Amino acid sequence: MVRAARRAFTLRPYAEVTMRGIAAAAGVSPSLIVKRFGSKEALFNTVVDFRAAADELFAAEPPALGRHLVLTMVELRDRLRGDPLLRVVFSLGIEDERTLLRARFREQVTDRLAAALGGPDAQLRAELIAGQLLGLGATLSLHRPDGAGVHAGAERLADLYAPGLQRLIDGP
Amino acid sequence: MVRAARRAFTLRPYAEVTMRGIAAAAGVSPSLIVKRFGSKEALFNTVVDFRAAADELFAAEPPALGRHLVLTMVELRDRLRGDPLLRVVFSLGIEDERTLLRARFREQVTDRLAAALGGPDAQLRAELIAGQLLGLGATLSLHRPDGAGVHAGAERLADLYAPGLQRLIDGP
Repeated sequence: MVRAARRAFTLRPYAEVTMRGIAAAAGVSPSLIVKRFGSKEALFNTVVDFRAAADELFAAEPPALGRHLVLTMVELRDRLRGDPLLRVVFSLGIEDERTLLRARFREQVTDRLAAALGGPDAQLRAELIAGQLLGLGATLSLHRPDGAGVHAGAERLADLYAPGLQRLIDGP
Repeated sequence: MVRAARRAFTLRPYAEVTMRGIAAAAGVSPSLIVKRFGSKEALFNTVVDFRAAADELFAAEPPALGRHLVLTMVELRDRLRGDPLLRVVFSLGIEDERTLLRARFREQVTDRLAAALGGPDAQLRAELIAGQLLGLGATLSLHRPDGAGVHAGAERLADLYAPGLQRLIDGP
C-alpha cells in the first residue's frame, strides 16, 4: 500500500490522487487504506518523507561523510528497490502545485545538511551536495541495466564519487 | 510548438501523446504541426534530442572541461529557460516503455563523453560526470526561487562544483 501510494503521489498531481485509485493499484479495499492511514493528506505525509533516508545518509562525522554518503546511497537503493531521494526530481516534471514535496526535501535534506556542515556558504554547499546525491541516483537508474555504474560496486563508486562530495563537505 | 511537444513527450507515455493535444497546448491548428514536422515519430525525434546541448557542454579540452561544464550548464539553463538534460530523469518516473529517451541520452551524452575521456574506467567516469551534471540542474531547479545556488552566479558555482567534475575527467 505504501509503495502504491508513494508512486501515485509522485506521478500524479495531488488533486488527482484518490484513495480508491491507490487501493486498486495495491490490490486492497479502499476501506482498508482509510482504516490504516486516515485521510489522503495523512497518507501523503506518511509516504512522502525523506527523514528516514536522511537519518541514514547523514549518520557520519563530516570528515568521513563523503564516502559514507555514497555507500549509504547505494545500500539504500538496493534495500528499497528504488532511490530514496529521486522522487523529488520527478515532481519537477509535473505541472501542478507540488511545492509541498520540494519544501519537504529542502527542510529534511538540504537545510538539515547545511546546519550540520556549518562554515562559509553552508547552504550553497548543502544544495550542491544534495545535487550530487540526486545525480548519483539518477545516473545509476538511467544506465540500467547494463551501465558501468550498476556493475561497479559500492566501494568502487565511492572511490570515484566521494572525493567531490568530500570537497563540498570540507568547504573552501 | 517545440516547447509544447517537448513537454508532452516528457510528461506522458509516447502512446498517449497526440498531435492534436500538442497543437491545443501550443495554440495552433493540428494541420500546422503536421505540415511542419510530419509524423509523431518525426516530431519526437526533433524535440527530444541531447546533441545540441552536448555540443556546447563538451566543447572544451579535458584539462578545462570541469569548469566549462558548470558554466555552460548554467548558461544553457538560462538561455533555454529550462534544463537541457533533466528531462531524461523525469522519464524515469513514468511507467512505460520510455527506453528510447534513455537510450538516446546514453548515446548522445554518456557514450560520447566516455569516448572523449579515454583512459581507465572511461565509461564509469562518464556515467558519474553525467550524474553530476544532472544533479546540478536538479538542485538548481528544486531550490528555486530562493535557493543559494540560484543566486550564487555561474563563477561561484564553478568554483565549488567544477573540482569534483574535473577529478572524474582526469581519472584515477
